[in-house]
Amino acid sequence: MVTMLPKEDYKVVGTRPVRHDGVDKVTGRALYGADMNLAGLLHGKVLRSPHAHARIKSIDTSRAEAHPDVKAVVTSADLAPMSPIPQVARQGVPIGENILAKDKVLYKGHPIAAVAAVNAHVAEEALALIDVEYEVLPSVSTVMEALEPGAAVLHEHWIERGGGDYIAASKNIADHEQHVLGDIEAGFAAADQVFEREYTTKTVHQGYIEPHTATAFWAADGAPNDRLTIWSSSQGHFAMRDSTAAVLGIPNSQIKVVPMEIGGGFGGKTLAYLEAVSAVLSKKTGKPVKSTMTRIEVLEASGPTAGGHLKCKIGVTNEGRITAAQIYFAFEGGAYPGAPLPGSCAAVFAPYFIENVQIDGYDIMTNKPKTAAYRAPGAPIVCFASESLLDEIAQALDMDPVDFRLLNVATPGTRRADGVVNGPIGARETMDAIKAHPHYNTALEGPNRGRGIAMGFCRNNSGMASAIANVLSNGSVSLIEGSMDIGGSRTAIAQMFAETLGLPIEDVIPTVGDTDSVGFTSTSGGSGVAYKSGFAAYEAANDVKRQFIQRAAMLWEADEDDVEYVDGELRHKSDTELTMPFKELASRMPETGGPIVGRANLNPGGSAGSYAANIVDVEVDPETGKVEILRFTAFQDVGIAVHPSYVEGQIQGGTVQGIGWALNEEYYMSDDGAMLNSSLLDYRMPTALDLPMIDAVVLEVPNPAHPYGVKGVGEANIVPPLAALANAIHDAVGVRMYDLPMNPQSVTKAIADSE
Amino acid sequence: MVTMLPKEDYKVVGTRPVRHDGVDKVTGRALYGADMNLAGLLHGKVLRSPHAHARIKSIDTSRAEAHPDVKAVVTSADLAPMSPIPQVARQGVPIGENILAKDKVLYKGHPIAAVAAVNAHVAEEALALIDVEYEVLPSVSTVMEALEPGAAVLHEHWIERGGGDYIAASKNIADHEQHVLGDIEAGFAAADQVFEREYTTKTVHQGYIEPHTATAFWAADGAPNDRLTIWSSSQGHFAMRDSTAAVLGIPNSQIKVVPMEIGGGFGGKTLAYLEAVSAVLSKKTGKPVKSTMTRIEVLEASGPTAGGHLKCKIGVTNEGRITAAQIYFAFEGGAYPGAPLPGSCAAVFAPYFIENVQIDGYDIMTNKPKTAAYRAPGAPIVCFASESLLDEIAQALDMDPVDFRLLNVATPGTRRADGVVNGPIGARETMDAIKAHPHYNTALEGPNRGRGIAMGFCRNNSGMASAIANVLSNGSVSLIEGSMDIGGSRTAIAQMFAETLGLPIEDVIPTVGDTDSVGFTSTSGGSGVAYKSGFAAYEAANDVKRQFIQRAAMLWEADEDDVEYVDGELRHKSDTELTMPFKELASRMPETGGPIVGRANLNPGGSAGSYAANIVDVEVDPETGKVEILRFTAFQDVGIAVHPSYVEGQIQGGTVQGIGWALNEEYYMSDDGAMLNSSLLDYRMPTALDLPMIDAVVLEVPNPAHPYGVKGVGEANIVPPLAALANAIHDAVGVRMYDLPMNPQSVTKAIADSE
Repeated sequence: MVTMLPKEDYKVVGTRPVRHDGVDKVTGRALYGADMNLAGLLHGKVLRSPHAHARIKSIDTSRAEAHPDVKAVVTSADLAPMSPIPQVARQGVPIGENILAKDKVLYKGHPIAAVAAVNAHVAEEALALIDVEYEVLPSVSTVMEALEPGAAVLHEHWIERGGGDYIAASKNIADHEQHVLGDIEAGFAAADQVFEREYTTKTVHQGYIEPHTATAFWAADGAPNDRLTIWSSSQGHFAMRDSTAAVLGIPNSQIKVVPMEIGGGFGGKTLAYLEAVSAVLSKKTGKPVKSTMTRIEVLEASGPTAGGHLKCKIGVTNEGRITAAQIYFAFEGGAYPGAPLPGSCAAVFAPYFIENVQIDGYDIMTNKPKTAAYRAPGAPIVCFASESLLDEIAQALDMDPVDFRLLNVATPGTRRADGVVNGPIGARETMDAIKAHPHYNTALEGPNRGRGIAMGFCRNNSGMASAIANVLSNGSVSLIEGSMDIGGSRTAIAQMFAETLGLPIEDVIPTVGDTDSVGFTSTSGGSGVAYKSGFAAYEAANDVKRQFIQRAAMLWEADEDDVEYVDGELRHKSDTELTMPFKELASRMPETGGPIVGRANLNPGGSAGSYAANIVDVEVDPETGKVEILRFTAFQDVGIAVHPSYVEGQIQGGTVQGIGWALNEEYYMSDDGAMLNSSLLDYRMPTALDLPMIDAVVLEVPNPAHPYGVKGVGEANIVPPLAALANAIHDAVGVRMYDLPMNPQSVTKAIADSE
Repeated sequence: MVTMLPKEDYKVVGTRPVRHDGVDKVTGRALYGADMNLAGLLHGKVLRSPHAHARIKSIDTSRAEAHPDVKAVVTSADLAPMSPIPQVARQGVPIGENILAKDKVLYKGHPIAAVAAVNAHVAEEALALIDVEYEVLPSVSTVMEALEPGAAVLHEHWIERGGGDYIAASKNIADHEQHVLGDIEAGFAAADQVFEREYTTKTVHQGYIEPHTATAFWAADGAPNDRLTIWSSSQGHFAMRDSTAAVLGIPNSQIKVVPMEIGGGFGGKTLAYLEAVSAVLSKKTGKPVKSTMTRIEVLEASGPTAGGHLKCKIGVTNEGRITAAQIYFAFEGGAYPGAPLPGSCAAVFAPYFIENVQIDGYDIMTNKPKTAAYRAPGAPIVCFASESLLDEIAQALDMDPVDFRLLNVATPGTRRADGVVNGPIGARETMDAIKAHPHYNTALEGPNRGRGIAMGFCRNNSGMASAIANVLSNGSVSLIEGSMDIGGSRTAIAQMFAETLGLPIEDVIPTVGDTDSVGFTSTSGGSGVAYKSGFAAYEAANDVKRQFIQRAAMLWEADEDDVEYVDGELRHKSDTELTMPFKELASRMPETGGPIVGRANLNPGGSAGSYAANIVDVEVDPETGKVEILRFTAFQDVGIAVHPSYVEGQIQGGTVQGIGWALNEEYYMSDDGAMLNSSLLDYRMPTALDLPMIDAVVLEVPNPAHPYGVKGVGEANIVPPLAALANAIHDAVGVRMYDLPMNPQSVTKAIADSE
């Protein structure tokens, strides 16, 4: 059992040191996924389906193979035998058919084959030499289309599921998750008023800067150590290893994945796409092979988040007490199962204690790329519905929207709709912070201006973690950790390590180890990195501390129990003359028994969810429908902010992504299922010119299960902006937006419809 | 205290698995020092002295710096301020002036400056644009020259040392090591006969295939983590880190050295030459810089072993009992101190128990490159003298040379001349093995044919070692060890790890970690790798074992003391139903507490010396002086042979190097101190055509201080061939060779002189 160390004693945690990787990243020295250029490198390119849905009648690779500069061609026949696609699958389960299609293509951009050639241009040209015969099938792009009677079916072998109040029975329903708390009918019966509304959101992409890339070198020589090395940037090199092993049908011990720096992930770099393709091409050629996506490929064929269709129903007393809340939501899971139902069920209504709740979430197959995680997966979608509806209700009740929420606030010990009993949550503190903030207490003047607020929640995860601490002779420590650094985490982890040993942060050198060098560490997701790998760093520091105490006891001919480690110093408990700084004992490792390496192995429970809230002021141009953000304040309970600058950056980054999702971003699909805006010119993400400075308010309600009170900070911040902006737009121009994105076109139309 | 595990139980130690790096090395996939090609790489080239001895009056780099394709120039002014060269220095102490000369050049090839340019050709061309003004000084090439009155002095600030029976006082004497045991005068007085002879040996080179190379990338940006990464092949990446840090005047924590595969070392890759040069060039340019020596540079300016001048004197009774032994030897240490006196003093006379001994070793400065270690440093030289003289004495006494040696054999508990009391040595077992061997018991027929025997010894070293064992979910283990693999050691270390955990060797994946990733591990030298890193692997395996026992106890709800680990399996001591294989528990790491990483930190004493012996049959062509080796049997006590094939390979390799040293190799110097044969065409190493199959006889006298009885095997084998061949030549043609090499010219001359 770990006791949280009291914050007032912290010397490193809570400070803002320069990040260890900062200069490398701003000078271009840092090595990203595509920066590995091994001697003899070949270049892989992927042939992709031009159709959203088609049966593959034949693939003839012979003309490509005959090209003198083409060194190998790969199809799904080169992967491990594929089992039929399961109807229910967790997000992250590797699906070979999504890496190379077998009998059918399920979305435009679906990989079919790949070639390795002497350069990328030849490889691209050679793709045209692969002859694929298709039987084109009708396609479905949205939940509505997928559930229509007679709609095209993606996976014919599945059973028909669904049927009920909200949804037609269909073979396109992969999964249904339901949570029932209390008696929903009785709850609505006890209400004075019941509100019900319908919402839709569109498929959006995480929009990371760096396209997917994987370089593989497979020494496939039959030797006992016949190993495959993969250099790729991902959010979890252990997951890349294990999923690639599964797709290739080899033991994971045969693969080493070297983590390269990552140019953004946000959940989208949790699935493997090119790793196995490069690997097989390398195996066939005996050369290293690099495959890199273009931006079009990223948008058409990596894993965006689902679009959704939602109905939300809430009953309240006239005093503002919520008696019942119900939500139905159906996600466009894309081609294969795995839409984020559990996290969405956990997030919706999480800020509130409601006695009667029913949640029905569905994962619906559509002819779009298989969805991947995107920052607080699914939570922004469901909270767009629930927080928009709560705003409507507060107005109907003529209550302050924060007071209304505070009246129903979830507190530690209350039960969440998905059955979880709340731990040390900061829901009330977050709402209190809004009320106390100058932004909320400053009137907003002017025509077409409005203010919105909304709450958000992300449950956060933990997972296995490992760390290795190698003490250097001058008292610096090389800290090898297992979490991919997707947001400055190596420095935060180093801070917790330094704090534990009483060292200055400059004396800790953090590195992300490859899959051979450090113990299994779960993917950097679920805002779990600082939690779990910080915990591992703490444990590794304690392992170092134990060994230092042993060494000092040996030197002093004392009992180990008589030696303590305080403030970076060894001390004899009774003989105050006997003290020795860490650095001095580090220099004496040779004479006291050799090197000191500490290690930590753990799978810590106790991660805690994070609440976020927004106040946003907008001005809507009623003529063009353009929404200008005047002021944005983002609150988040983060547990303890290990490195406040990065915490603020996470809050700002998540907020900005939420703004893009709310106002502009969408997969704009043609009738035959092609994405029509697959470039960053046409897929409209916000730029600095679209945004005000996001004012980040860091709230600290510590998590007592973590030695430094960490909760995780990366995700909850993307949840409230969608509803907060819808609520602000309503406040500004009196129209309620039920469909995303709230772009000029739709806002203008809503205003016109309301007149 | 470690107990040696009984050999009869071994399942992996003592077998001959395929080496993990074998296929990579024979297919060319393995990455050696010069195989790092980073984007933007610049190429470094070193300007070297054309004179053997000169004062540097000025260095003008301005013309080189003005060259448009030259990006930086470095001189000694760019290194840390240099202290005056100490007169006494251990081998391996970094000497900045040997990396870039300051006021004087001390040998032809001495580095003076270096340039970084866009390619190696431009860099080489630009060297001519550096203007150096020299005051050329007289030079000395041999001990004799260096000790002559009025000889050129290399280090004017040194004090005059020496003077005595053997040696003139001189400022060119760096060091004198003396060991006295008993009463040497009384010992000679007690002898019936006293023999005294003089010997010389020449400077020879280790002759590794791969030239020195170092690629450096220094992010010298003032950030807290302003780090220098070096990729180089060496025998000790930690030593490269620490010596480069010293020469650059920065903390060693600022440097990471990544070990590349090594194309031979034999002691010669224990010193840094190019690391600091590439580092400064990288710092100045902000680009990665690679510097690689040519073969000429390797021969002229890396670290060969010393030539020597020796006088040996031995007194015996008529029954063959040695009453006293004395040796004087002076090594041509080259430009800077550090000739291998201690190991030589330990080795000479080590096979024998002699009550009265005096040893005087001297380190003499000459205008040649500073010597480095070479396989059993110095021991072949001193044993050439002692073992030649013992052969002469045996003949004079008309005794069998083995019986004569056995009469005086050192046994456990006797005292060695350097004061060490013998541990579990195998001197007698080695001599017994000769006597029992068919080679010794088969008569050698024919004219000009002769047989020689000789003994050799190497004391062997240990040092700090670390290992990290990362258990993978399928039950394989990634083993990160800290010792550079210079002779198949990664597989031997993996065998000891596998043995300890009862795993098949194929389930262990050994890798040499970089200096950040694994604890300090001392240089791969002194035949200590299998000893210390095998010991670390054993300890890391035990750390894994302890954690597995804890996990099993948790799963079984049992006390840890009730669980044992036997034969790769967890067992409940009393409940025989409860067993679980390693692989099964490995797959259950997530549910039992997370990853399992084991670590070992140690500085084990207890390494034991190794004895070697040779029987060699030769035929000498009296007309040409060519010595043909007819049969060669090499014996060595290795403790326990972990991987017998590599042990045999070590014995064969050391023997072959000894043969080259004995018969052909030498630095052939001009009068003005230039090496005249600085290519592998002219520097005559033996080829396969010169050699018979070396019959390696592996003797196992286990070392009880090591868990697997390891002693170390890499060096003792090079010691006896020099004397064994001299003794065989004498047996063949009746001439006694006192000077190396015994090449056709010198053998012909000796025959002519004897007629």
